[in-house]
Amino acid sequence: MKIETILSPLLFKQVENLESKVVVVIDILRATSTITTILNNGALSVIPVKEEGIAREYKSKGYLVGGERNGETIEGFDFGNSPFHYTEDIISQKDIVLTTTNGTKCIEMASQAYQVVIGSFLNLDAVVSHINKLNKDIVLFCAGWKDKVNLEDSLFAGAVASSFTDEELDDSSLLTIDAYNAAKGDLFKALQNSNHFQRLASKGVTKDIEYCCQINTINLVPVLKEGMLVT
Amino acid sequence: MKIETILSPLLFKQVENLESKVVVVIDILRATSTITTILNNGALSVIPVKEEGIAREYKSKGYLVGGERNGETIEGFDFGNSPFHYTEDIISQKDIVLTTTNGTKCIEMASQAYQVVIGSFLNLDAVVSHINKLNKDIVLFCAGWKDKVNLEDSLFAGAVASSFTDEELDDSSLLTIDAYNAAKGDLFKALQNSNHFQRLASKGVTKDIEYCCQINTINLVPVLKEGMLVT
Repeated sequence: MKIETILSPLLFKQVENLESKVVVVIDILRATSTITTILNNGALSVIPVKEEGIAREYKSKGYLVGGERNGETIEGFDFGNSPFHYTEDIISQKDIVLTTTNGTKCIEMASQAYQVVIGSFLNLDAVVSHINKLNKDIVLFCAGWKDKVNLEDSLFAGAVASSFTDEELDDSSLLTIDAYNAAKGDLFKALQNSNHFQRLASKGVTKDIEYCCQINTINLVPVLKEGMLVT
Repeated sequence: MKIETILSPLLFKQVENLESKVVVVIDILRATSTITTILNNGALSVIPVKEEGIAREYKSKGYLVGGERNGETIEGFDFGNSPFHYTEDIISQKDIVLTTTNGTKCIEMASQAYQVVIGSFLNLDAVVSHINKLNKDIVLFCAGWKDKVNLEDSLFAGAVASSFTDEELDDSSLLTIDAYNAAKGDLFKALQNSNHFQRLASKGVTKDIEYCCQINTINLVPVLKEGMLVT
């Protein structure tokens, strides 16, 4: 098993033989943390869509639809990108449509992989265990923010990569492991100077960041199957 | 002062207002370590050229020419990319032409900046002191390896960025600072699993890596002026 980390969507084209690899899509604040939460709260599936217009079409067909652009809930949608919006009483046994700034774009970019997996600190150990069993080369794909490298996705890549010390790691993985080792004692503190923290804190959603920094609170792995994220 | 780190040449287009910024070009193994060494050993200048053909033209005019592609000395050139090739007795008071796989490409990409500076662990403190005095926004530009992120350039970016704790750091800078803090106790050891280490070690030039991991052995800063790197 080889482990490679892609720190920005602009670097995703460096992945060779995508169809033989497992891609872990990482958008810690907040898409992949929220997707994991939605499935944990009993939804049947999350349908990731890149375009707001397509999400609106689903809405007109009666689906529950969540969406965010630049950190704000899209007008007329049922939910934003906060995990706290998706409570069990509303979403249980439903298919939920979701579109976000960075995360859903990356899911689409990775869709030709052998398998696309959703990773977050919430389900870290479950993801590591799952990809270990698949025994394929792994791509840790950080969504970043508008193609820029971000800290929280990189640190999560390091958390996953650090479980593979005996495997062949690329330099980006080694970089994120070093960074994760320095930060893991207090993730929330490590993220306080990050751009995304400051962006979300300015919108008053510091509690979302605290939530997304929790490790191993959820024991399931969302996987892309026929365009839907399911467990 | 804002500090941003560019982890791969593919991300350099994210730099805005380049002409107002100071760019530190970083190619630790080995271009920027070698350039710093060449000037420290008494050369008048290093003329960085991107194309091998242009270097050959200089050679035919009587210049001393160094060059490497994929880690190997170019045939017919006076030197490769090893700092040990450029001894004082040969290069003192000469202009040296240099072309390398990654480093000279990045110098050209950055050439429209307010100033282009050459950084390596050898002259770390000198670089930090120099860019502090300029009081401009800083871009730490990692050359990487064929557009891929590499560990040694990223760690050096972290070493520089960690001197600017009170400044506004982007997420890539925060990532490299965390990684540098984990690695700085033994840089040579931290690099032993890196792709470039293994590439150079396979060519028998581990001593070059040891050399390039030395911190603050040289107290000068190469700066690009009219296409030439001078102190």
